[in-house]
Amino acid sequence: MEEKTLIFGHKNPDTDTICSSMVKQILCEKEGNTNVKAVRLGNVNKETKYALDYLQMEAPEFIEKVEEGQKVILVDHNEFNQSADGIENANILEVVDHHRICNFQTTDPLYYTARPFGCTSTILYQEFVEKGIEIAKTEAVLMASAIISDTLLLKSPTTTKFDEKALVELGRIAGIDINKYGLDLLKAGTDLDDFSEKELIDLDAKKFESKGVKCVIAQVNTVSIPDVLKRKEKLEEEMNNAIAENGTDLFVLAITDILNSNSQIIALGNRVDIIEKTVKLEDNMALLEGVVSRKKQLLPMVENNI
Amino acid sequence: MEEKTLIFGHKNPDTDTICSSMVKQILCEKEGNTNVKAVRLGNVNKETKYALDYLQMEAPEFIEKVEEGQKVILVDHNEFNQSADGIENANILEVVDHHRICNFQTTDPLYYTARPFGCTSTILYQEFVEKGIEIAKTEAVLMASAIISDTLLLKSPTTTKFDEKALVELGRIAGIDINKYGLDLLKAGTDLDDFSEKELIDLDAKKFESKGVKCVIAQVNTVSIPDVLKRKEKLEEEMNNAIAENGTDLFVLAITDILNSNSQIIALGNRVDIIEKTVKLEDNMALLEGVVSRKKQLLPMVENNI
Repeated sequence: MEEKTLIFGHKNPDTDTICSSMVKQILCEKEGNTNVKAVRLGNVNKETKYALDYLQMEAPEFIEKVEEGQKVILVDHNEFNQSADGIENANILEVVDHHRICNFQTTDPLYYTARPFGCTSTILYQEFVEKGIEIAKTEAVLMASAIISDTLLLKSPTTTKFDEKALVELGRIAGIDINKYGLDLLKAGTDLDDFSEKELIDLDAKKFESKGVKCVIAQVNTVSIPDVLKRKEKLEEEMNNAIAENGTDLFVLAITDILNSNSQIIALGNRVDIIEKTVKLEDNMALLEGVVSRKKQLLPMVENNI
Repeated sequence: MEEKTLIFGHKNPDTDTICSSMVKQILCEKEGNTNVKAVRLGNVNKETKYALDYLQMEAPEFIEKVEEGQKVILVDHNEFNQSADGIENANILEVVDHHRICNFQTTDPLYYTARPFGCTSTILYQEFVEKGIEIAKTEAVLMASAIISDTLLLKSPTTTKFDEKALVELGRIAGIDINKYGLDLLKAGTDLDDFSEKELIDLDAKKFESKGVKCVIAQVNTVSIPDVLKRKEKLEEEMNNAIAENGTDLFVLAITDILNSNSQIIALGNRVDIIEKTVKLEDNMALLEGVVSRKKQLLPMVENNI
């Protein structure tokens, strides 16, 4: 049998990345293409584990890199530096994503479906609907979990009417109370006790480079910012270690209060001046009220000031 | 009123580029977004003019460049070097395209619909169908013309079952005999008498750079290769002028016989060795049997040998 096409999201996988890769596999199979397999590029976080446990499902298999010519489908990312090692020489058949397009190219025409929605799973939901393919309870829970996670239960400014509509419908199909299930899911993701400080700053970190400035914006969700700040000294130590190791110019850690929709940031590196164009740092920190979205709020704040 | 969103295809517009931009405007308007306007980045060729005359329609307005922040929708291309001057600083809201993705990036999430089909209008046809929007005769003729042109009446190897299905259905809606209308359309495009040799090599030329090698692949369609070759000496003179002006390393002109599906190529420049890895040139020329598609046949033949 022909080698399977691998479906995966970004490194440091979040719930949208894991769930959307699994849903895309189900969608392909329901369309008659069974030669596909969801895989992941990193550890499953506690929030995602909550959703998988709810469904009594295993996480996709872990892979480290892809071989030359490997057929792949990317979900929830397109930038090669967020993808599997070796992606430059893979055969990218399809992308389903909700991010800007950058550091991405192919040698052949492909399927690419990007929508400026809050979540990749909302795009997949539309694909089911447009193609008239029935959504079963399993994929409804997976897609609902992804949307709840990426939109913080529809409270993030990245939320669109399409995410809202999809979540309501998916909740109905899944037979779950979206608000109750959603809060439980989000809270499961904020249990940070098991993580070392080094793990915390890697948990959901996006690297990018703009005008020669190397940046990292990491994010952790919590229901209590003060709880996380008890570990500030060690977090800063690990951030400084990462900066030294990777030649990073600006490392921002956003500690996001998902109940009150604020973020406390810690910013380190030789280019913290970029942050200070927007907000004054005290003790390397600032509270950004109403800021919860890396993509819509933190990333533009950094990029526009480089 | 807010400034209109401009819709356009690539420079050196062909029938797919012109017709798809006009169809996308109609589609937006039927969806309730009337603040859009199709424009073009170059002269309308005779084939496209045949389709517009059939419909008694004017070509979209010509524009030279776009201003910073201008809202745009791109059809039938994505590479910035094939797009309007100033595209780097425009606000790209959406792309509908059937080419590889390359030299393209945005700072924000966007709508991007790429499909590996033979024609952009086939993707737009699917958009009408998926959204349940009625296709009137005007847009049916425009989309059918684009598909006929890009697939050489479904004979090009780029043709997919989706193009075939769309063309049959569009022919029915338009009330035209696809084969008769199609041959008339293609033949209209092969009347090269009015063009100077300089114009001929610019008519449908795609520039690209790979591993530092600057290439141009230009294509003209004809029903008689010998007729075009009567002008070989002057064509080569203009190709050499263009090479000297732009620092081009390899300039390939493909003279494509649309009735017999062959191409005679003329290759000039300091890197004709790239072509000679595939075929021996005699008197700067070679006949490539069965070759009609730049994207699927000529481009890979050049790129894979750089």
